[in-house]
Amino acid sequence: MNKNLSGLILILFYLGVIKSKLFYIEVKYPLLNASSNQTKVIELPLWPAPKFIKDTSKGLLVLSQNSFKMTTNLPQSCDIMEENIKLYTNIFFLPKFELNPIISDTDVALNELSFEISDQFCPGYPNTSIDETYELSVKPGVSIIKANSVWGALRGLETFSQLTFINEDNKLSIKDSIEIKDSPRFSYRGILLDTARHYIPVPIIKKQLDAMSYNKFNVFHWHIVDDQSFAFESFKYPNLTQKGKYGDAHVYTQKDVKEIIDHARLRGIRVIPEFDSPGHVESFGRTFPQFITVCWVGGKPYQAIYSVHGKAEILNPTLEGIYPVLKEVLSEYKEVFQDEYIHLGMDEVYYDCWKSNPNISEWMAERNMTDYHQLEAYYSSKILQIAKDLNKKVTVWQDVYDNGVRPEKTTQIQIWKDEAIGFSKWSDYLNDITSNGYPVILSSPWYINFVSYGFQEWYKHYLVEPMANFTGDAEQAKLLRGGEACLWSEYVDGANIEARLWPRACPIAERLWSPSDINDPEEAKFRLDEQRCRLLRRGIPASPILNGYCGDYEYGMKKSVVFEPEFNYDWLKSENKVPNTNESLKLKLNRSLFLILIFIYHF
Amino acid sequence: MNKNLSGLILILFYLGVIKSKLFYIEVKYPLLNASSNQTKVIELPLWPAPKFIKDTSKGLLVLSQNSFKMTTNLPQSCDIMEENIKLYTNIFFLPKFELNPIISDTDVALNELSFEISDQFCPGYPNTSIDETYELSVKPGVSIIKANSVWGALRGLETFSQLTFINEDNKLSIKDSIEIKDSPRFSYRGILLDTARHYIPVPIIKKQLDAMSYNKFNVFHWHIVDDQSFAFESFKYPNLTQKGKYGDAHVYTQKDVKEIIDHARLRGIRVIPEFDSPGHVESFGRTFPQFITVCWVGGKPYQAIYSVHGKAEILNPTLEGIYPVLKEVLSEYKEVFQDEYIHLGMDEVYYDCWKSNPNISEWMAERNMTDYHQLEAYYSSKILQIAKDLNKKVTVWQDVYDNGVRPEKTTQIQIWKDEAIGFSKWSDYLNDITSNGYPVILSSPWYINFVSYGFQEWYKHYLVEPMANFTGDAEQAKLLRGGEACLWSEYVDGANIEARLWPRACPIAERLWSPSDINDPEEAKFRLDEQRCRLLRRGIPASPILNGYCGDYEYGMKKSVVFEPEFNYDWLKSENKVPNTNESLKLKLNRSLFLILIFIYHF
Repeated sequence: MNKNLSGLILILFYLGVIKSKLFYIEVKYPLLNASSNQTKVIELPLWPAPKFIKDTSKGLLVLSQNSFKMTTNLPQSCDIMEENIKLYTNIFFLPKFELNPIISDTDVALNELSFEISDQFCPGYPNTSIDETYELSVKPGVSIIKANSVWGALRGLETFSQLTFINEDNKLSIKDSIEIKDSPRFSYRGILLDTARHYIPVPIIKKQLDAMSYNKFNVFHWHIVDDQSFAFESFKYPNLTQKGKYGDAHVYTQKDVKEIIDHARLRGIRVIPEFDSPGHVESFGRTFPQFITVCWVGGKPYQAIYSVHGKAEILNPTLEGIYPVLKEVLSEYKEVFQDEYIHLGMDEVYYDCWKSNPNISEWMAERNMTDYHQLEAYYSSKILQIAKDLNKKVTVWQDVYDNGVRPEKTTQIQIWKDEAIGFSKWSDYLNDITSNGYPVILSSPWYINFVSYGFQEWYKHYLVEPMANFTGDAEQAKLLRGGEACLWSEYVDGANIEARLWPRACPIAERLWSPSDINDPEEAKFRLDEQRCRLLRRGIPASPILNGYCGDYEYGMKKSVVFEPEFNYDWLKSENKVPNTNESLKLKLNRSLFLILIFIYHF
Repeated sequence: MNKNLSGLILILFYLGVIKSKLFYIEVKYPLLNASSNQTKVIELPLWPAPKFIKDTSKGLLVLSQNSFKMTTNLPQSCDIMEENIKLYTNIFFLPKFELNPIISDTDVALNELSFEISDQFCPGYPNTSIDETYELSVKPGVSIIKANSVWGALRGLETFSQLTFINEDNKLSIKDSIEIKDSPRFSYRGILLDTARHYIPVPIIKKQLDAMSYNKFNVFHWHIVDDQSFAFESFKYPNLTQKGKYGDAHVYTQKDVKEIIDHARLRGIRVIPEFDSPGHVESFGRTFPQFITVCWVGGKPYQAIYSVHGKAEILNPTLEGIYPVLKEVLSEYKEVFQDEYIHLGMDEVYYDCWKSNPNISEWMAERNMTDYHQLEAYYSSKILQIAKDLNKKVTVWQDVYDNGVRPEKTTQIQIWKDEAIGFSKWSDYLNDITSNGYPVILSSPWYINFVSYGFQEWYKHYLVEPMANFTGDAEQAKLLRGGEACLWSEYVDGANIEARLWPRACPIAERLWSPSDINDPEEAKFRLDEQRCRLLRRGIPASPILNGYCGDYEYGMKKSVVFEPEFNYDWLKSENKVPNTNESLKLKLNRSLFLILIFIYHF
């Protein structure tokens, strides 16, 4: 090995915990900057990139599981900090890593990471106004994370963890002088998971929440029910679950939901459930068929015209009996889901079925309604009023707005349409909706269920600049609250969700967190590849994005941690660890005999 | 539940071991035949569909792990049959399934599956002329699989296994009167895995071989080395591995390779290795830089013109020193790989670099060569002669033929080009190449690395009819030996290979095995969905293709068998099953005390 090469490998080594190496696709198609040792815009392998980095390091610090501790200035114990100290202790020192815990005479130790949290408060559930700002100072002895709130401390801890790596002595290390100041560009950074087209088991959802926190996402938009299934356990209307679920194993019990919300809370992630109506209610309609609009064709009811409408598909807003039921359903959501927001869907309400129904025509005529927008507005006002009565803030898909409905200005509008799928440009919608004073969540360019092939598929998600064609002023700009990567699950379930979601959601995480000028994919790809290796090292089987390799811990290798109990929940733990029945029987017999013998012996 | 519905569910139940249910995508976009209870072309959920089925069943037979046995007429023990009897016993009765083993008075038992193998021979490695024909007769008492060879017996066993399902009493069952006669349409049904762009760990390759056998694939085309890495352990030139590998964990030792070949043999799968040259040799060139053509631009050597050529990328055929080395490399391949064929690659030899090199120009001028096809022909004839000297048959990519080289007629030509990627139609190549008397393997329409989104992505792979535009006669038609699904791994490694490959390779399996008139994807999708659920039940985390669900054994659920040791190799077994130290310590202490007490008591 020549000297340059060894030097180069050492540099590579210092760049992160991940000993990944990147290769070109073909000799005649190299990547620009063909391996990760090139000069980079962002020298440290952090994802998403922080706002400000100053690296004046001259050496390394060593962290040992025997001495390293994390401390806080909180006056009393706080479950969020305690849980994260436990989580990150695994990330740092998982037994399977078999790190060298010895701090030798020549090592400089980092023995403490101290959290200085200004508000000294252990919060409940994260909300829209959480403060995620933090400052991180890495230096010998005690490193410090300063934050206004526990939430900022968590973000700082994630950044700190990404700075650590395993050095050539197999010790956990970190560069010895780094200052980082960081805060998110957008306050709303979400991922939508759809558990209606396919059920995603609870342990898998929890793992996705872990991966979200590694990428500083802070909203889990839970598209929990839809036409295909109603997996939410309803106590108020048990039939909704009974008739709406796929199989018995395909239900989110209220206990499950609470567990997921708690799991998300500990990671600074809000859980916003969606109850989509008046469309997308087939599974709901299995319990309440009387509320579904019957579609007519040629004077006959229950007629489908594929692909215009089915036989009976959307709610019939003219039936007053529906609203008390919806109020019950939403109030049950309110009992279970803690977030101040609920998502009410309202996308893809196609009018043809409503138009075909004579009862609806009659009802509208009686009220001098001539336009079906009025009917949708009628429905919207009713359900928005229900949410308001329940003291819930609301997000809706943009269709409501597009159809001329103008809900209250607190209503958040989620943009999903785009010229790519036959509508206008998303930037036009963004300009229009914010000019009318509505807060907006952007999703159109980030429908990551649309998988495609090619040289760096993720570039297109990464290169989105939400404000590129923005025409409003600074005040109007503030109405763009953030964005959301949507993983609709027509072709996704537990078996492939991780390969689809990671690292494909990561570019969106950086776009939503990092300053807008961190936008060069040719630079970002090396950090992203390292982030994907990092995810592997935390048990997330993320897909590769470049040729090359991560290390001896890849999926399928003995050192893989993808199935370590520390990085999993329930399903692997409980079943794979059950002792062999014969063994446990022997154990019991052994113990019984033992007690009998003691008994005999004593007499 | 109304009566029709219960009847319907019972029918669903009888259709297969998988209690899957399929749902439409949207109310207004139902699938044709919206759920799997509809009348089907193929009534039994078999994949790939057999040639002939006669189902005169009136009831069910029950298989119990206590009594069911598989027997053969072979005069001595045969490892292939023994191993498969063990494998399928797991598939039938895995302890985790917790089946009811009781055969009650009202049950009719199937106690034996008898293999009647005409040639009464336990074969070595499968080859081009293996006979996979079989007849299966399911009936009470003893069911029979008749086959000419062990290979046909294996295919019949797979079909038999697909007929079994778990009935409502939680017993393994099968319909009581089924006759199947079956043989493959094409003799070559392959999958290419590329372990050079990313290393695929050995246990993961083994699992893919399992899944291949569940789909009656019979060739594993191992694209083991390429520009990016040389993962094959060479004893003759250790540097090839040392300088060519990614990391230390990213090498296929010769022991690994032999294990993989044996694993494949037991499943009736040939392993054909590829040594790709004269292009795609960057990793080879790290050891033999002196044999790589230096590319020149503007009078300077080592100049790249991306994307025309790199700095130095392909072999220089004019250097005679190269051929003894290649002979050594290929003879080492021959020692390790057992198949009669070797794949010599020879794709994507772009002439520009050769043209730029003054030494090559000079050499050609001396020999009155004017066309670079002649240079390629020169190289081809040399390396084909080496293979011939080694008594190896050869497959090459079509480029050799396209460039005017006409190797011996035994050379198999693999077609990969298509109009979709800027060439001619693959059917034109097929017509042309077979008209010149060369046997052909078709891959163009089955590059399944090209992932895309949309309503039934797999339809396009399924709807390929190799003979649709065939212009030759029956003799010429025989030259189409079969086809190969290619999973190039630029974006694939152990973490996502299963989600990418399964069930996306299944439609190709059916096209290559089943009669050409089994080609309606609207019918096939239900069977394919059941096949994907079946794969899940055998530990393969295959992706969903339709809305709906499989059962309580999905990935992420406690009954999932994806990580059961019976369906995995090495990596999960060894690490995750180590007993908890404290527990085993307690057990030991307990036992010691027990013995001490007995000792005391006896005195």
